[in-house]
Amino acid sequence: MSLPDRDGQASRVGCTLALDVATPATVVIQIAVARRHGATISERLEIVNNTVPMPAQELVGAVGGRQHLFHVQPGTVTVGYEATVAAGAGTPAPVTDEERVEALRPSRYCPSDRLAGLAQSHFGELPTALERVRAIHDYVWRHVGYVSESSGPTTDAVDTLMSARGVCRDFAHLVAALCRAVDVPARIASVYAPGLDPMDFHAVVEAEIDGRWQVWDATRLAPRPALVRIATGRDAADTAFTTVTGGRAELRSLEINAVAAGELPLDDHVRLAALG
Amino acid sequence: MSLPDRDGQASRVGCTLALDVATPATVVIQIAVARRHGATISERLEIVNNTVPMPAQELVGAVGGRQHLFHVQPGTVTVGYEATVAAGAGTPAPVTDEERVEALRPSRYCPSDRLAGLAQSHFGELPTALERVRAIHDYVWRHVGYVSESSGPTTDAVDTLMSARGVCRDFAHLVAALCRAVDVPARIASVYAPGLDPMDFHAVVEAEIDGRWQVWDATRLAPRPALVRIATGRDAADTAFTTVTGGRAELRSLEINAVAAGELPLDDHVRLAALG
Amino acid sequence: MSLPDRDGQASRVGCTLALDVATPATVVIQIAVARRHGATISERLEIVNNTVPMPAQELVGAVGGRQHLFHVQPGTVTVGYEATVAAGAGTPAPVTDEERVEALRPSRYCPSDRLAGLAQSHFGELPTALERVRAIHDYVWRHVGYVSESSGPTTDAVDTLMSARGVCRDFAHLVAALCRAVDVPARIASVYAPGLDPMDFHAVVEAEIDGRWQVWDATRLAPRPALVRIATGRDAADTAFTTVTGGRAELRSLEINAVAAGELPLDDHVRLAALG
Amino acid sequence: MSLPDRDGQASRVGCTLALDVATPATVVIQIAVARRHGATISERLEIVNNTVPMPAQELVGAVGGRQHLFHVQPGTVTVGYEATVAAGAGTPAPVTDEERVEALRPSRYCPSDRLAGLAQSHFGELPTALERVRAIHDYVWRHVGYVSESSGPTTDAVDTLMSARGVCRDFAHLVAALCRAVDVPARIASVYAPGLDPMDFHAVVEAEIDGRWQVWDATRLAPRPALVRIATGRDAADTAFTTVTGGRAELRSLEINAVAAGELPLDDHVRLAALG
Repeated sequence: MSLPDRDGQASRVGCTLALDVATPATVVIQIAVARRHGATISERLEIVNNTVPMPAQELVGAVGGRQHLFHVQPGTVTVGYEATVAAGAGTPAPVTDEERVEALRPSRYCPSDRLAGLAQSHFGELPTALERVRAIHDYVWRHVGYVSESSGPTTDAVDTLMSARGVCRDFAHLVAALCRAVDVPARIASVYAPGLDPMDFHAVVEAEIDGRWQVWDATRLAPRPALVRIATGRDAADTAFTTVTGGRAELRSLEINAVAAGELPLDDHVRLAALG
Repeated sequence: MSLPDRDGQASRVGCTLALDVATPATVVIQIAVARRHGATISERLEIVNNTVPMPAQELVGAVGGRQHLFHVQPGTVTVGYEATVAAGAGTPAPVTDEERVEALRPSRYCPSDRLAGLAQSHFGELPTALERVRAIHDYVWRHVGYVSESSGPTTDAVDTLMSARGVCRDFAHLVAALCRAVDVPARIASVYAPGLDPMDFHAVVEAEIDGRWQVWDATRLAPRPALVRIATGRDAADTAFTTVTGGRAELRSLEINAVAAGELPLDDHVRLAALG
Repeated sequence: MSLPDRDGQASRVGCTLALDVATPATVVIQIAVARRHGATISERLEIVNNTVPMPAQELVGAVGGRQHLFHVQPGTVTVGYEATVAAGAGTPAPVTDEERVEALRPSRYCPSDRLAGLAQSHFGELPTALERVRAIHDYVWRHVGYVSESSGPTTDAVDTLMSARGVCRDFAHLVAALCRAVDVPARIASVYAPGLDPMDFHAVVEAEIDGRWQVWDATRLAPRPALVRIATGRDAADTAFTTVTGGRAELRSLEINAVAAGELPLDDHVRLAALG
Repeated sequence: MSLPDRDGQASRVGCTLALDVATPATVVIQIAVARRHGATISERLEIVNNTVPMPAQELVGAVGGRQHLFHVQPGTVTVGYEATVAAGAGTPAPVTDEERVEALRPSRYCPSDRLAGLAQSHFGELPTALERVRAIHDYVWRHVGYVSESSGPTTDAVDTLMSARGVCRDFAHLVAALCRAVDVPARIASVYAPGLDPMDFHAVVEAEIDGRWQVWDATRLAPRPALVRIATGRDAADTAFTTVTGGRAELRSLEINAVAAGELPLDDHVRLAALG
């Protein structure tokens, strides 16, 4: 039932981003691929603030995710990252009790408590987690339109359900919120997505099916077996690729690249698949 | 197709309400039955503020509705109203251009602009207004549960859609909001509802079908042919049975009665019906 | 106390707008200046749909406002309007009981019931309507920043209070919502605003002070004595300059002009002023 | 500057709760006091489901918090917990980088991104974290009223700011959201609160001042030095004392007790204080 393994090949991913910095500020980026057992990562991260190379502090997060924190002075900061990841997709990871408890909670952009009534009414009668997730996934795919720039940073899953349009993070938030509301643990992962067009950071959902994390993408815009995990969390509040605190800096440019190991796999977006 | 006429009989409706008044205040009540052509109304309205009978000023509103405004002193105010209404339900009223334009606008509790995407996605493809209203009416009937005290005065149609429960005003707001979002003019009427159990003020929707106002009630709790119109407006902001301004007063008790002319009619809540 | 009269001179206002029409649709525009006692209006309204001149039906609205309704075929529709208005600003109009009752209700973009607690806590202790309105007006002026394109069509007064930025309609909605929440009747007027830069349609608030409608503009971007009223209502749901129903059409271009009679008056935005 | 130490004495806290269980369900409770270095905890936890003692699985959470997870059958489940905690309040804990990054993120009930504009406009100009937190703490204390049952489980900080009333969790959510919006890391702790009247579970805020977690309570209802930490997280989504998943169970009764070690300390709610 699961999608084919992709053992022994290497994906190449990376990004270049530039920020205009108005005041001294602290920046946290989440662009490095997550570490995981059995995967070999070769990578390079370069941060330059006004021609000066800047060291970054690595903070370890959930599911192998890594944040990089650094302090910048007014002017410009550019960040370059590239990585080669050699690994098989392997089998889906088991869900721990701690993960399950957390992945059932409402969160900023997945207010599962607010839409619980609608979710229960539409999907609550289905007997298994798999059937619920498939029905939710199908509902979002059919009813929500992918429209660039149709949402903003404060858009949550209720907004997306109402407006019936959004970008990848909105699809993921809505699927995750509906899952949690019918007692299916769900979390968000940011990923590099070979095959995505136009290329961008991508967001998908991991939901628990029979004790394991399985990945879902209601946008159906990129094949799941080729996704490369970056950050994992409750929603975009945890997985934002860049966060500025204690000062002001704005994104000036962003370029992302992601090439799959070997040929881009096919994906029907119905079968089970695991995120590496 | 339309429900049977009820010519030549008289409904008996009325209410008794008491307010505790903390400071001098202005009170507006909407409890008197709306006037309409061909209907004979015999009525009595008594307002007593701390044993002193109070005169009320009658303000004429939309669709024959009448508001009664009066000023009260601290203590207690009791309002007694009873009316006998003799009239046939007649034919549904034509929709004027002014009414149509207004009944398509979003309003406080019917934010049709917020849920436009969902409404278009679910009901926008249906070719006629009648099919759209029937589908919306059926959707709300199937997905929203009637639960006493499950909503509050600030609950709007988006909240109701999310929580999937509410009382009569919430059902009416959600139906009206969805109708407006798919270009079907819709407004709210407060009514006396013979047969409602437990007895209370009731709220229903009038939507335009083929140029005429037809009445819908997604709670299906009272037969439409026996309803007696009180106030008509965009939503509960226009039809509240009591509003206090410029001071503080709180409802202490409320008793409503409504007896149909003759036997209580049957209603399948699918056929077209007009609100008298 | 009131601003100087501007008797005997004529303002020149108008606009040109073009819509791309995708399907047959009904369009309602509110761009014609409101009629009022003692004002002489010379005007011209031209509507052309794919080179064919189109008649429009005039619907009379509140406070002399006029809507023009017409039906369009796919292609382009252009609307040209120009008017010369000769009138003195005169004295502020008295507030009728019906107007007062309506102007205290919450509305779509002025959810005064939602923010009632904050409003009461900040402004409710002030003893007179004038002090309340001045304090609200000053609060919004100090705390909200005018930022072009910082809001959208579904933005309401709570959103504006939270984000602390908006355009003219957001300022007006927030002022009106706060006023209603402390028992001061308030309504919205769309206006031509000589002196506004960049030129655009403008929105202001009328609030009841001592029984009369006085005008307030927390953006302070145009002098109140030169404003020319177009539409009046509860909020932007009532005063939108163009509304499309029963089909699809999108604004392609819009050009507005407004020249004051004589020299542009000064306005400290603190003294009382009436909207003509 | 800091409040007096309470070395060498023991607080006694605990609770008894009963749930009516409708279907087999999983229950997670957070009622056990958090472990911390230097504190000696003597405790007893008893769970009985229909007369059968139930074992619970202990999940370790943030800041020494412990969740207890167990599965129940239809009928009744009663939980009894009591603990004696002997410890000094000690010094406030240092804030780690990981904690800081997380405590700046918006969360379900603390949507700091939504109210960022208001927060920046009111408190953003104050130069230090201490001044910002004190001003926020004072603002919430002055403007929000403590009203029992004035909020519900889906109430967030924006709702509380608008309605200007709430219970302890609402005060904590609003303070935390405003802090995060002006770049002050803030998190929520649920606590036993000796002196609280009526006795209940309590919620307070920890905000970073000069690199350390300091505790704030805008309700001012219980002295901070006597608080005993239970759970710590982003907001009530993380600290709920009971959560039911995969089935239905409802709280039937709840009784809480908390007695301070020695005499109840005084607290001016202005000076810095640490949560044990």
